Amino acid sequence: MTDRAPKIRLFVEAELSQGTGLPLERDQANYLFNVMRLSVGSEILIFNGRDGEWRAEVVEANKRRGVLACREQTRAQSLPPDVWLLFAPIKKARTDFIVEKAAELGAREIHPVMTRYTNADRVRQDKLQAHAIEAAEQCGGVFVPPVSEPQKLTEALSALPLDRALMFCDERMEAATARDVLRSAPPGKWAILIGPEGGFSPEEAEMIRTRANTYPVTLGPRILRADTAAVAALTLWQSTLGDWAE
Amino acid sequence: MTDRAPKIRLFVEAELSQGTGLPLERDQANYLFNVMRLSVGSEILIFNGRDGEWRAEVVEANKRRGVLACREQTRAQSLPPDVWLLFAPIKKARTDFIVEKAAELGAREIHPVMTRYTNADRVRQDKLQAHAIEAAEQCGGVFVPPVSEPQKLTEALSALPLDRALMFCDERMEAATARDVLRSAPPGKWAILIGPEGGFSPEEAEMIRTRANTYPVTLGPRILRADTAAVAALTLWQSTLGDWAE
Repeated sequence: MTDRAPKIRLFVEAELSQGTGLPLERDQANYLFNVMRLSVGSEILIFNGRDGEWRAEVVEANKRRGVLACREQTRAQSLPPDVWLLFAPIKKARTDFIVEKAAELGAREIHPVMTRYTNADRVRQDKLQAHAIEAAEQCGGVFVPPVSEPQKLTEALSALPLDRALMFCDERMEAATARDVLRSAPPGKWAILIGPEGGFSPEEAEMIRTRANTYPVTLGPRILRADTAAVAALTLWQSTLGDWAE
Repeated sequence: MTDRAPKIRLFVEAELSQGTGLPLERDQANYLFNVMRLSVGSEILIFNGRDGEWRAEVVEANKRRGVLACREQTRAQSLPPDVWLLFAPIKKARTDFIVEKAAELGAREIHPVMTRYTNADRVRQDKLQAHAIEAAEQCGGVFVPPVSEPQKLTEALSALPLDRALMFCDERMEAATARDVLRSAPPGKWAILIGPEGGFSPEEAEMIRTRANTYPVTLGPRILRADTAAVAALTLWQSTLGDWAE
């Protein structure tokens, strides 16, 4: 196993440093030893979102338990640019998708917000967090954006510091294109707000537009579903103000 | 029903013009009369991808059959910008998603291509075309991009006219950012090529890169899944060379 880069990447909670021994949780042991057929001496990559990525070796393996040993740091920890995604949950599969894509596209924090026209299945923060972790495992990330518990839109806006610029995407309004707005917008801390399928209520739209440091934008001439709008907005932000521009 | 805009949008195959009577297919009649509970006098919006959008009235309704009459054109026909999406199919749900998103984001044609590392479920052209139609129905489109039968990559490249520029997205290569490349690239006819999860083989990558009128690009520092890359690439193209830039 030592002449090939290990392919499996696993998120763990524990602190990682040279030589650390990591007892595996039952579902992790099941995945590694029963599903993936690893055994003592096998190597995988592990990360915890804080200490970079490490090559780890299986030093104990049975069906329900196991221990990994941290051998060597393979990547330093890094943070994505400081952009948050605030979005109104929609149907379950599309909500899961938004969280997965936000993690892939390098959002720093993910915040589900409940709006007047939100018509969502029950939002389980723990399940959404698991999707963000899986996206990082799959896509080689060393950072996992935290997913907050759902909050009301009014509370989310109150909690949003005024030094954080807000890119406000509403399909139903007149605004400049995201490209033109972002090109002349300041760098720094940002958040992106995506509404539900029915859009924002007139009162909500007014409240958002009158917030200081807020930039209304349109995402083209076609109506986009909320999940598409989230990916498009993060893409445009990353390629203009984020780390795709470098 | 006449004082409110009808909400249901239905794709039909027939030609549309003032007064035309349209017999409904069995599944359309079932949807309108059994699922949506419409009856004689109800109005919907219809489009066929060629003749714009029309307000139509139900003039005959029973459980398995029905007839609509075309009353008035509500939107003229329009075409999205001339960009094609060529993509390697992946797992079924993500392939469906790519087609849905390409239709929403205004691709003119959609071409599944089979590559060396393509590991896809069976690709059903008729099912993919149905996803493109549904996306247009849901998102207010009057155009439906045709989805071609899957072809081999070599055949797809041979069939791609040389006056059509190609944006080549490969996560594994060194290239300039999509933003910088597209900013200085010529407008006109384009295609976007997205690889499978395992990337292109070295021989495939070489064949693509040496094609004339081809622009290799990267989509940021993180590895993106193929479905994310398709949405991100179409977004950047539309916002730079397409109709989001206007």
